Amino acid sequence: MSAVRRFALTPGEPAGIGPDLCLLLARQAQPHALVAVASRALLAARAVQLGLAIELLEVGPGAWPDSPAPAGSLYVWDTPLAVPAVAGQLDARNAGYVLETLLRAGNGCVNGNFAGMITAPVHKGVINEAGIPFSGHTEFLAELTRTEQVVMMLATRGLRVALVTTHLPLRAVADAITPERLARVARILDADLRGKFGIARPRILVCGLNPHAGEGGHLGREEIEVIEPTLAQLRGEGLDLVGPLPADTLFTPKHLEHCDAVLAMYHDQGLPVLKYKGFGAAVNVTLGLPIVRTSVDHGTALDLAGSGRVDTGSLQVALETAYQMSA
Amino acid sequence: MSAVRRFALTPGEPAGIGPDLCLLLARQAQPHALVAVASRALLAARAVQLGLAIELLEVGPGAWPDSPAPAGSLYVWDTPLAVPAVAGQLDARNAGYVLETLLRAGNGCVNGNFAGMITAPVHKGVINEAGIPFSGHTEFLAELTRTEQVVMMLATRGLRVALVTTHLPLRAVADAITPERLARVARILDADLRGKFGIARPRILVCGLNPHAGEGGHLGREEIEVIEPTLAQLRGEGLDLVGPLPADTLFTPKHLEHCDAVLAMYHDQGLPVLKYKGFGAAVNVTLGLPIVRTSVDHGTALDLAGSGRVDTGSLQVALETAYQMSA
Repeated sequence: MSAVRRFALTPGEPAGIGPDLCLLLARQAQPHALVAVASRALLAARAVQLGLAIELLEVGPGAWPDSPAPAGSLYVWDTPLAVPAVAGQLDARNAGYVLETLLRAGNGCVNGNFAGMITAPVHKGVINEAGIPFSGHTEFLAELTRTEQVVMMLATRGLRVALVTTHLPLRAVADAITPERLARVARILDADLRGKFGIARPRILVCGLNPHAGEGGHLGREEIEVIEPTLAQLRGEGLDLVGPLPADTLFTPKHLEHCDAVLAMYHDQGLPVLKYKGFGAAVNVTLGLPIVRTSVDHGTALDLAGSGRVDTGSLQVALETAYQMSA
Repeated sequence: MSAVRRFALTPGEPAGIGPDLCLLLARQAQPHALVAVASRALLAARAVQLGLAIELLEVGPGAWPDSPAPAGSLYVWDTPLAVPAVAGQLDARNAGYVLETLLRAGNGCVNGNFAGMITAPVHKGVINEAGIPFSGHTEFLAELTRTEQVVMMLATRGLRVALVTTHLPLRAVADAITPERLARVARILDADLRGKFGIARPRILVCGLNPHAGEGGHLGREEIEVIEPTLAQLRGEGLDLVGPLPADTLFTPKHLEHCDAVLAMYHDQGLPVLKYKGFGAAVNVTLGLPIVRTSVDHGTALDLAGSGRVDTGSLQVALETAYQMSA
């Protein structure tokens, strides 16, 4: 792999802020060849709306760039919309376009055209409204790459948080914390921290499921019956796991200083601290895939599309993380 | 009520760091008359162990102080231990002593001898081991004052988080979020922010129960069926409630700047961010009681008792908050 690599960037929902972010980003040069997989017409129109002079350089199969685009320009693999996109207005007719960009980027990673992909937000609702079952980027890419189990991890400077369960109703969480799932997720986290983040022996802090990590069984028995035996088994495989710890004492500088990642049992146990700390500059990383994929940690922000009042902080962290992971 | 008021301070578990904290605190003068409800012999012995020269000034019924103790001294309402306490070693025979200190302090608040009480940590396990059913300070004081519903709120500089449910196994949380409980808790929070914190019209941000606050019903229906209708009803009563909001976007400076408190649905949704932000200086406030009660937010730290290596930050915030609430 050469020092300069090629990455796919998908702007996601065409009515959202994804296209804006890609254009704003293109004002500066990147260290790698970044290819927006998107409608050229969309990007051209949004650039006009934002008052940005960004040169769109068309690339694609048989014509891939091997050096970064200069500042003020953006490589585009043109992927046509079904109908013109209006900033802020969802249109289910463009749902197929959104999936096509993900398919091109994902397959490009699989076949080696791209060293990784970075995704801006899609709008799940409008894709499903179009009659296409879609539960998210992560699930889409897992299916594309035939990966049985993936792990969602969010990261910001100084903190990484991976989740054992992700987008489940709260009442379904306790039953979903099985020894099998916990072990699979912990192994993937450990393996990718080694393989993709270059950490020789990752130290992982593991949250309990219940408040105070169950307080010796008084506030729930899953720590005793499920989590502790599973962690013991994984330690036997060489994983460096600490816990289960109460979530409200684990997320303090004293504990976090000495770990490489936190493994939280569910979404709202782990992500509020991370997003509080990250303050608009967090990245969503999918672990367990055979490809490198990172994402911004925010939504489509339809009300801000076309306004120019958007912050590229999260996208920049997503790019840096993808570059790091594929190094 | 005079400008100088009188407060009870309970050091809690005698083998823990509570006695140490009270003695360390007494090195400086307080703005109010602070009475340690504790064994004089315990405090004297622990002071020797810590190498602290603190004068213990005995007070009690018929002999209450009306001015602050000078720096280097501490008012003590002597409450004898059953057996001498050894730092770091729990002894169930002293469980009755711990409860007696709480009873004296609580009753003193009820009858007006004290303007409020500040509690250092107790050890629930050893009290229960002694055959006394005890589930915590909060429940004990609720029963003492015949209060049906109390609300646990943690606070640190710039953030207050109250909880709809507290020490419940995670699998029991969803069913515990009923319209009745949510309404009672929100009303108490609103009333005490007005009455005890002097906030004219408190703005409260309310978390959803499910990730992404249910995402329109896709990730759980409690927001639609329980939370939203209840908030609508409460708004009709004049409460200023925002939400339900996703917990991982609510806890960001943009949202928090414009609120007086956050109402989280459960323990590990609300407290990790607060403790991360508070960094050892958070206070636990019991709302809904007819008396003022604040507490440190940490445990007995048996391994540190007698060492002098403890931080009085949380106790200081607990004192300041009690002073503020009773003003």
